[in-house]
Amino acid sequence: MSGVDVIFEPSSVILIGSSRIREKVGLSSPQLFRSVVYNMKKFFKGEVYVKDVNGEEGQNIEALPKVPELAVLMLPPEKSIIEAEKCAKMGVKAFIIITGGYKDEQRRELLRLKEEHGVRILGPNTVMGVINTANGLNTAFDKDVMPAKGNIAVISQSGGVGACILDWACYYKIGISKFAFMGDKIDIDDVDLLRYFAMDKETKVICLYMEGVKDGRKFIEEARKIVGKKPILALKSGITQESAHRARSHTASMAGSDEIFNAAFKKAGIIRVEDPEELLNAALALSKQPPMFGDNVAIVSNVGGPAILAADAVVRNNLKLARLSDETKRKIESLYLGVDATNPIDMIADARAERYRKVLELVLADDNVDGVLVINMLKSCFFEPEDAKVIPEVAAKYPNKPVVDVAAGGEDFELVYGVIGESSIPVYNLPEKGVKALKVLRTYGRIVEKVG
Amino acid sequence: MSGVDVIFEPSSVILIGSSRIREKVGLSSPQLFRSVVYNMKKFFKGEVYVKDVNGEEGQNIEALPKVPELAVLMLPPEKSIIEAEKCAKMGVKAFIIITGGYKDEQRRELLRLKEEHGVRILGPNTVMGVINTANGLNTAFDKDVMPAKGNIAVISQSGGVGACILDWACYYKIGISKFAFMGDKIDIDDVDLLRYFAMDKETKVICLYMEGVKDGRKFIEEARKIVGKKPILALKSGITQESAHRARSHTASMAGSDEIFNAAFKKAGIIRVEDPEELLNAALALSKQPPMFGDNVAIVSNVGGPAILAADAVVRNNLKLARLSDETKRKIESLYLGVDATNPIDMIADARAERYRKVLELVLADDNVDGVLVINMLKSCFFEPEDAKVIPEVAAKYPNKPVVDVAAGGEDFELVYGVIGESSIPVYNLPEKGVKALKVLRTYGRIVEKVG
Repeated sequence: MSGVDVIFEPSSVILIGSSRIREKVGLSSPQLFRSVVYNMKKFFKGEVYVKDVNGEEGQNIEALPKVPELAVLMLPPEKSIIEAEKCAKMGVKAFIIITGGYKDEQRRELLRLKEEHGVRILGPNTVMGVINTANGLNTAFDKDVMPAKGNIAVISQSGGVGACILDWACYYKIGISKFAFMGDKIDIDDVDLLRYFAMDKETKVICLYMEGVKDGRKFIEEARKIVGKKPILALKSGITQESAHRARSHTASMAGSDEIFNAAFKKAGIIRVEDPEELLNAALALSKQPPMFGDNVAIVSNVGGPAILAADAVVRNNLKLARLSDETKRKIESLYLGVDATNPIDMIADARAERYRKVLELVLADDNVDGVLVINMLKSCFFEPEDAKVIPEVAAKYPNKPVVDVAAGGEDFELVYGVIGESSIPVYNLPEKGVKALKVLRTYGRIVEKVG
Repeated sequence: MSGVDVIFEPSSVILIGSSRIREKVGLSSPQLFRSVVYNMKKFFKGEVYVKDVNGEEGQNIEALPKVPELAVLMLPPEKSIIEAEKCAKMGVKAFIIITGGYKDEQRRELLRLKEEHGVRILGPNTVMGVINTANGLNTAFDKDVMPAKGNIAVISQSGGVGACILDWACYYKIGISKFAFMGDKIDIDDVDLLRYFAMDKETKVICLYMEGVKDGRKFIEEARKIVGKKPILALKSGITQESAHRARSHTASMAGSDEIFNAAFKKAGIIRVEDPEELLNAALALSKQPPMFGDNVAIVSNVGGPAILAADAVVRNNLKLARLSDETKRKIESLYLGVDATNPIDMIADARAERYRKVLELVLADDNVDGVLVINMLKSCFFEPEDAKVIPEVAAKYPNKPVVDVAAGGEDFELVYGVIGESSIPVYNLPEKGVKALKVLRTYGRIVEKVG
């Protein structure tokens, strides 16, 4: 295994912190140490050792039955470097450095360890470190924060934005393969992580939050090699002079002009998004559904108004409302009295599972349709959450046309999500968001056509 | 009381439906009837009578001790008209017609009752009718759907979109004064409802979902009279040819060109939004916070990355990042070692209530600041939900500068919302949404300046 692999898939880990030391800058604290120990002991399937510096509970690394592969450092810079040096000499292969506050000289000390011992380093200042839902590795400093297993990988340069994405993913049960908080990336950087996730079997979609990159050319080259097989989404902040200034001081990276990033992302085939919700909504669609290879969207709904909102969103997002063939329309209208099968199709408020099954099947079979947005409301309708099960069933018969679902609202969304949230169908809480999901599948369709 | 008042504030109501009749088009059904009876008996504080046509439980209107003020009709057109005529003759003052499927001739029959007896009619095809959180009037056909009391009024032309907005408001505990589903508006229309809500003491903000208006000029005139005192938000669908076509057939209204609506809204001082979430997020801000009378936004955060995302959103929304005075910066930096008080202000992950209190107060006191976005994350930070209480406390000292809060994420949002969700501070789950809330307060500030 290369060092980057060890960061995510160590057989054994030592957690090095202190139950006494508290330091304002850099976040060293007994609370952080305790939480990471708690999470690792609870979730990690490999061996966990704990060294409490200046404490009593800790195990001494020299006395361990075997040398751990990975060390997680949660001490102030000076003490971290001393412990890192000991570990490197003993044969530890990689480090995750949670705490921050490192001076340039101290960073150089860490890089010297890399040169002399070949160790790899994630951080410092990663804040939350790494999560791997497959083996339970979890160095997050909030207790019990563990997302559901899935195939979305997230790389975050910022602790705060990463924590927000992580919290969102946990709360809305969005399946995650791995999470990596890069922090100051003195060693392991975007390019290393992209390479790792490109090869990672658990990962189908790669999400990035970035404030800047060290080597833009290399980053673009690496991304271009990947996007044909796995989509890459980027949330890039610091679009303005002021916020770019802040981004530079925040994680010590070059921010660069926003236009340059737009051009670079386009060249690399990276899809740019504007906020954490859009990032995860897009990732959800890409992780579950095929790319869309045409612009024509059909809308199948049990309510009129939300279908019209969806139709508006289709046009606003530069997609097209599919013109259903006469045959499709005739078939639907002959089956259901009172249903006008002009797209967007309002199947009327008493539509249940069977009507969804038949209409969705007819619409997916229509050559004029490239993708379908299904809307099923519960409030003001007779639809029951269990009825939603027909949607993944029918969609599975047309594996080359994306289908997304909208259960518009709060409780409605929760109830429908409870039934098909783990199926192959991404579910959204508003028509606009469902259409945006199809839009990103269309964008990825174009990228695949171009690259492939 | 005028007839429109009776729609919302009747002393007594008769519910007329059937526990046997089921009709596909128009939604008459025993299920709908049962649910409305259930909701009215559970929530309504006035007298409720029930007439089950072709059933056994019902009370005959002729035999009631007194004539109810309002009748809610849930029968197919022909039977509804027969019952409506009886009611009108007995002295019932107003009708809410839930069911649809009325032909032109049947609509004329209803209007004849208005002419002959002076009754007022909401509908037909209102689907969900009316909700008044003050007196518990609730004709929604989903059981137990009752939003929290508040001062946001919603007028919806569509049952489905209205149901989505209602579900959203219930789920996210957004305070509602009254809900009106207009349906086909053969009598009571947007203008009548605007007039009513303009005078309604419980209502501070008016939300509209519309697909078209009957008399645009009158609508604009009426709105212009109101917006100086109460903001009006509009979600208008049917922006494209296809969706406009659908909107016409959906609620039988003239859709008109989208550009004409944009110009009309601008002239009227109506703020346009793009989806139901944006509608309620904007309404929440306007219902709790003062308008913003300048462009300069300060960001006070305990995390760096989300603050940078917020700064980006400020610029994207044509607001400005406030330049704090040297005095403000000096004071903050002398209080907190390691905090760089350049806006956006990153107070560092260990900020608790006291640091929020002091920094927010200094920032609000700064003449260069017109409004403040507070970000308090829990994940990856030491902030506790209870700490959020200082935000409304400090904000209350500066009643002319809006303050909005962002607890970025899923669980984080829920926890902070649980503490200050009912306070004067609107809370959002992403930086972008908090900034959009300030943007709408700024837009309303301009409207007030223009109209006032």
